[in-house]
This record gives sequence, C-alpha cells and structure tokens, in this order.
Amino acid sequence: MKILVINAGSSSLKYQLFDMDNGNVLAKGICEKIGITPESGSITHKRPGAENYTKETPVNDHDAAIKLVLNTLTDKELGVISDVSEISAVGHRFVHGGKIKASNILDEEILAYIESIVPINPLHGPASLKGVYACRRAMPNVPHVGVYDSAFFASMPEASYTYAIPYEWTEKYGIRRYGFHGTSHRYVSQKAAEIVGKPIEDLKIITCHLGSGSSVSAIKNGVAVDTSMGFTPLDGLPMGTRCGHIDPSIVTFMIGKGYTSEEIDTILTKKSGLIGVSGVSSDAREVWAAVEEGNHRAQLAMDLIVHYARKLIGSYVAEMNGVDVLVITAGLGENDAKVRNGILTNLDYLGVKINEELNMNAPRGTMIDLTAEGSKVKVLVIPTDEEMMIAKDTQKLADEFYAK
Amino acid sequence: MKILVINAGSSSLKYQLFDMDNGNVLAKGICEKIGITPESGSITHKRPGAENYTKETPVNDHDAAIKLVLNTLTDKELGVISDVSEISAVGHRFVHGGKIKASNILDEEILAYIESIVPINPLHGPASLKGVYACRRAMPNVPHVGVYDSAFFASMPEASYTYAIPYEWTEKYGIRRYGFHGTSHRYVSQKAAEIVGKPIEDLKIITCHLGSGSSVSAIKNGVAVDTSMGFTPLDGLPMGTRCGHIDPSIVTFMIGKGYTSEEIDTILTKKSGLIGVSGVSSDAREVWAAVEEGNHRAQLAMDLIVHYARKLIGSYVAEMNGVDVLVITAGLGENDAKVRNGILTNLDYLGVKINEELNMNAPRGTMIDLTAEGSKVKVLVIPTDEEMMIAKDTQKLADEFYAK
Repeated sequence: MKILVINAGSSSLKYQLFDMDNGNVLAKGICEKIGITPESGSITHKRPGAENYTKETPVNDHDAAIKLVLNTLTDKELGVISDVSEISAVGHRFVHGGKIKASNILDEEILAYIESIVPINPLHGPASLKGVYACRRAMPNVPHVGVYDSAFFASMPEASYTYAIPYEWTEKYGIRRYGFHGTSHRYVSQKAAEIVGKPIEDLKIITCHLGSGSSVSAIKNGVAVDTSMGFTPLDGLPMGTRCGHIDPSIVTFMIGKGYTSEEIDTILTKKSGLIGVSGVSSDAREVWAAVEEGNHRAQLAMDLIVHYARKLIGSYVAEMNGVDVLVITAGLGENDAKVRNGILTNLDYLGVKINEELNMNAPRGTMIDLTAEGSKVKVLVIPTDEEMMIAKDTQKLADEFYAK
Repeated sequence: MKILVINAGSSSLKYQLFDMDNGNVLAKGICEKIGITPESGSITHKRPGAENYTKETPVNDHDAAIKLVLNTLTDKELGVISDVSEISAVGHRFVHGGKIKASNILDEEILAYIESIVPINPLHGPASLKGVYACRRAMPNVPHVGVYDSAFFASMPEASYTYAIPYEWTEKYGIRRYGFHGTSHRYVSQKAAEIVGKPIEDLKIITCHLGSGSSVSAIKNGVAVDTSMGFTPLDGLPMGTRCGHIDPSIVTFMIGKGYTSEEIDTILTKKSGLIGVSGVSSDAREVWAAVEEGNHRAQLAMDLIVHYARKLIGSYVAEMNGVDVLVITAGLGENDAKVRNGILTNLDYLGVKINEELNMNAPRGTMIDLTAEGSKVKVLVIPTDEEMMIAKDTQKLADEFYAK
C-alpha cells in the first residue's frame, strides 16, 4: 500500500510518499511560495539515490500545488509511481485537533469540527483545511486521514489540562492545555518501549522533543498525562524564537508600555527564546558559536533551554512518581550533545547515569542508548519520524476503510 | 530592645510591637479605611491576655494612621509602653525590593531606588513608601529598616530569574523573575535547619508557602535558587484568586475577544485560581465544603493546587539534584490536611514517607514533624512568622546603627 503524507501550510505544502509494504520513502518534497504573487511558486522533489529536483513555476493555490505534486510523482522522468491511482490513502498533518483524541477519517463531520475550532487555531487551521480540500478534489476516491499533533494529549487528566482561569473562559472559548508535537512524542515513546523490550503500558516515559519548537511530555502506561505546550505552542520551554513559560503579567505590563496585543504576540512567538535572549540567532549552532567567542547572552540563552528542560523533567517525574525511560528527540535534541549533557547530568537523585563520552561523540541520525552501567533510568536518543507515524495511522484507517 | 513592625497598604496599616529581649509580641493591630472618605477610619488593637479594642475614628492619611497607632501604644489604658522613645527601631515590610538583596536601613539612596521601581510595583510600592515617610516624620530619631519580600530571591542564578523574552525588555524594563514571600521562605527554611539540626549551608530545602497567595521555593545551601512567583505575584501555582502559570497567549487571545488589558489583569488577579475554577469561593474551606456536596469544579480547583505544588516540588528537586527537607507553611499549608496529603503522598521516588494519620489530625499553629520512619526526606509543617523575621532583621541593623 502506498500512502501520501501531506503537511499543508499557508504558502507551502510538504509531501512524502511511503511504500508501506517495506516502510520506504519513495519520494518527498515541498511546494513553496504558493499564491504569494501570481508568478510565485516552486517545487523541490527528492528521491533516494537520485539528484534533487527544483523548479520555479507559478503555484497559485493549494489545488495547483497538489496537482504539481501528483504530476511530479507520476512524471516519466521524475516520478516514482505510474499513476495517481496507486496511492491508496492520504494522511494529513494537523497541528490542532481540539478535543479529537486519535487519528480519524476526514469525513464531513470531522471537517466541520475542525472548521469550528479555527478561532483557537487561526494560524494553522485554515491552511491545513485548504490542503485537505485540494487533495480531496484531486484524489476523491481514496480515504483522507487526519493526524493531529494535539490528539495524543486529548486524554490527559483534567488537572493537567485545566488552567486556573475563570471556568467560563475554559467552557466558552475552549481555553485549556492542548499540547502539540504529539505525533512525535507518541512515535518516540512507542519506539522507546520497543527498545526497552517492555510493554508501554508498564512504563513511565518522559519524552523531550527539542527542535526549533520544543516540548516535554510525561507518558504513563502509554497515556500522555502532561505536556509543556499549552493552549498554544508558545508555552513550555524556551525555543528558537518562542518565549515558553513567562509570567502572564508581562503581557499586560508591555501593553501598558504602548505595545499592541498583536505586536506582543509576534514578539513572544518570533523574537523571543534563543534569538531574543542571545540576540544572535534562533539556531543553536550559531548561538553556540557565539558562546565560543565569549558571548554571555548566548550562554544564558542555551542555559535557559537546559534549565527549563530539567525543571520540566523533574515536574513530570513528580507527577508520575518516578520515571523508567528518558527520551530525547528532534533536531536540537538529536544533534546537540552539549544541550543533552546539560539536561541529563546531575540527575543522581533519580539514579540517572549516562555515558558522557558516547553522548559527546554520538553519531547523528540513529538511535543512541546513552544509558551507563548502573543507571536506574534508561536514557535514549531516538530520531523522530512524524511522517512515518502519520503514514502508519493512515494505513491502519485505510485498511479498515477498504475492508468495509 | 523594642521594635515596631509596620506593613502599610494603600488604605491600611498593620503594626506589631516586639520586645526583642524575650521575643514577645507586646501588641499588634491594624488601621483600616485610611483616607477612603473624610470620615472613614478605624483601629483594631490587640494585646495578649486583654480584650481586643476596636474604634471607628477618621484616619485621613498614613500620618494620621501612625499617630493613632503610637497614641494607642502609649495610651494609659490600652498602651504597652509609656513613651514612643521606648521604640528603638521600625521595620517596614516591602513586597518589592527590585534588585535589593537584603534588608537595609532606609536612607535617602535606598528610598530613591524604591521610588524608581514603582513602575514595576505600582500596586504596593507607593503605599509602602507612604508608610515609611509617615513613620519617619513621627519617629525621626530611630533607624527605619526595609525588609523586602523579594530580597531573598535577588541572589538566584541568572537562568532562574531570566525570562526568554527579548533581552532588551529585561534590561530596559527590569522584567525578570523577582519572587515574593521571601521573608516567609527565609524564616521557615532557617527554622527547618534548626529543627533538622544541620547547618542550612549543608541542606537542600523546598519551602511551600501556601496561603491566599502561594509560592514554592528551592533553597540550596542557604541560598534561594528558584521560586515560583515571577515578575509579579501572579505566576506560579493557582491561588485563592490568582491564576498562577498560564500560557501567555491566553492574554492576547482574550484581548482578541474584546477584553481590555486592565480587565484581564483584574480577572487573572482577582477572579481566577480557586474562585475562578470552583465558582464557589477563594477560601479553601468553602471550596472543600462544596466538594463534600459533590461539586466537581470545586474538586478540580483543589486538585489544581495540589497538581501544581507537586510539579513545582519536582522541578526544584531536579534543579537542586535532590532534596533533604520539605517544608509547608502559611494559612492553607498550616491548616489544610487534605492539601498537604495530596502534595506529600505518592512521592516514593524521592523516598518521602509521611505519617498520614498525624497529618490528618495535626494540631494547628505549632510545628509538626510529619516525617515517617524510613523517610529519606524530612517533612515539616512550620508556622510562618514574617513579622518576627522583619523584627529580627530590624534588630540586627539597629544594633549596628547604634553601635556606630
């Protein structure tokens, strides 16, 4: 079974075609600059073992984008399938699924619900929906599956997702902790259980997804019980450009200083975190380079990520009354040995012992077991693969769809 | 040496007169409704072993208030001293001391600094200053000492007090974690070290000040390394009427719904926390009564306090890489056995074992050692006494003042 995974943004559309019979990625790529100007648009197309292909060509809307993708996938030279009908199902990534608890077939009812929660997801909701509608028009006869970053956290206990704000706000506006990156946290927690060789139902796992966006999650007996992102992906630990946890009074204080609510939102989302504190970059590699040159603010910015990650780990250990496995994943987590070292050392109170030398010299892109002898907690670096998780969910639902 | 402790609010002035030779409180009380109308004003005056005295009388400003206090303290019938000159020094409570790291004599330089930080302390700053100026006019020849709720936290590591916002905001506006309740956290941590019988320099202590306002602090080797209140007393765990930690996006989202910044500030400060979630009361006793009647929201509200307190404890244990003593204090902490039970049980991973029966039946108003046999962590309930701490600091600085 071949499955196409789609991740639609407002002016971009990422795609990845899986052959689920062997788990291989046949091709992947991205359409960009969709509808920015009448002439703008491009596609970058990648196949294993072949040179990357890039072409500038007008892409006016998401319909044009998905047509371009399908034409490229079935192209005589660039293609990897001979006909669109070879694609059995399409998996769509959604950042926000509101109260949806698991991946599902995107029927009219589900789509209506997702339309209804656009007010709490104004940034990603409309773009994801555009992608779905365009794909449905281009491939009307296959099941389209929604996979939601928030779904993994929709089963959290009430005390984990409720904010101590007026309950009327929670009810009327749906203000609660939703959590994001769930597809990644779910993927690596399942992998971790496989690696440990125990049922996930018997494990307490803390997963740290550290990328340009970051979140930490607590997974007890296979169920997410807490996560650091909240009502939006702004909450939690400091990220490349996002502030993470701050005193909410800072927002009202800065409004008092003459900023508008929109300006503050932009600053906390795009000009805070690593770039805001360091003044250097949102990219940890560039921040570390500045640290090497003795830049104090750069060091402070990196310290903050480690500081908050450790605090979150500690809080989730308390919440679960223990931890069996610590997992680190995503771009920063998989590649930044110093950040990992900062987070994972000096946790003697938990009996965490890591192989520090292996950590500092770990190969990239593969699973690494950092657990040192005598450690009471397993410590793993696991490369995340959200697209594979989306493809697997889609395959499962497509199997059920076709079995009917 | 007799020391007067003053806690001035915008329309109230609390006082407490200590005889430091034996640590006794000679008298205490409060002036209220200061300057609300030309006729408004009252004093309530308490002496050990005597009936409380209350009188309605116009109190137009803080000068009138302190005069009324001094007249009462030296009154033939109600008084406890024969002349104002018996008061050797006055200790003034400040909520916010900005970057001030310890109690100090309120000279012109210090007062100018406190005036300069009124923008980040608009609620309490002006009232506290009014109290100082009035007391200085009434008692010009004795040292006046400032004791600051924030001072204990002014020595926190940079990663603990820095928010991942644009660094320019931190520098220009002084936006950082200040922390509050420091006088209480300092008092109970010192008491805890005495009780444990070890130097505070050798201990990792977590103190939970749970009152109508609440905060949790980490104290490593006698130095505060983190605390849950932040730029303002709004951050941290949910309180009687305050929200504690929320996603800052909630503020900008609600502004998008038509609320003003001021309205949101008021709602998060006065209509959130226990009252906001339960809809019943900001008083835990009334919320518990609603729980007894099966009120789900009341239960959720209490759950949130326990949930956040546990998470904060966990995060500080991680930060300090262990904990030797857990202390609970303040109104809610000293009196609410169920909240204590929720926070202190199911911490097996730390080796915490408490005497649950003693906890549920603990006498009020005294130190209680809840530590059960075999516990790796000492667990203490210690009644806080911020006024005594202020008096002690004042005595120390007054001794130095008079020795010159």
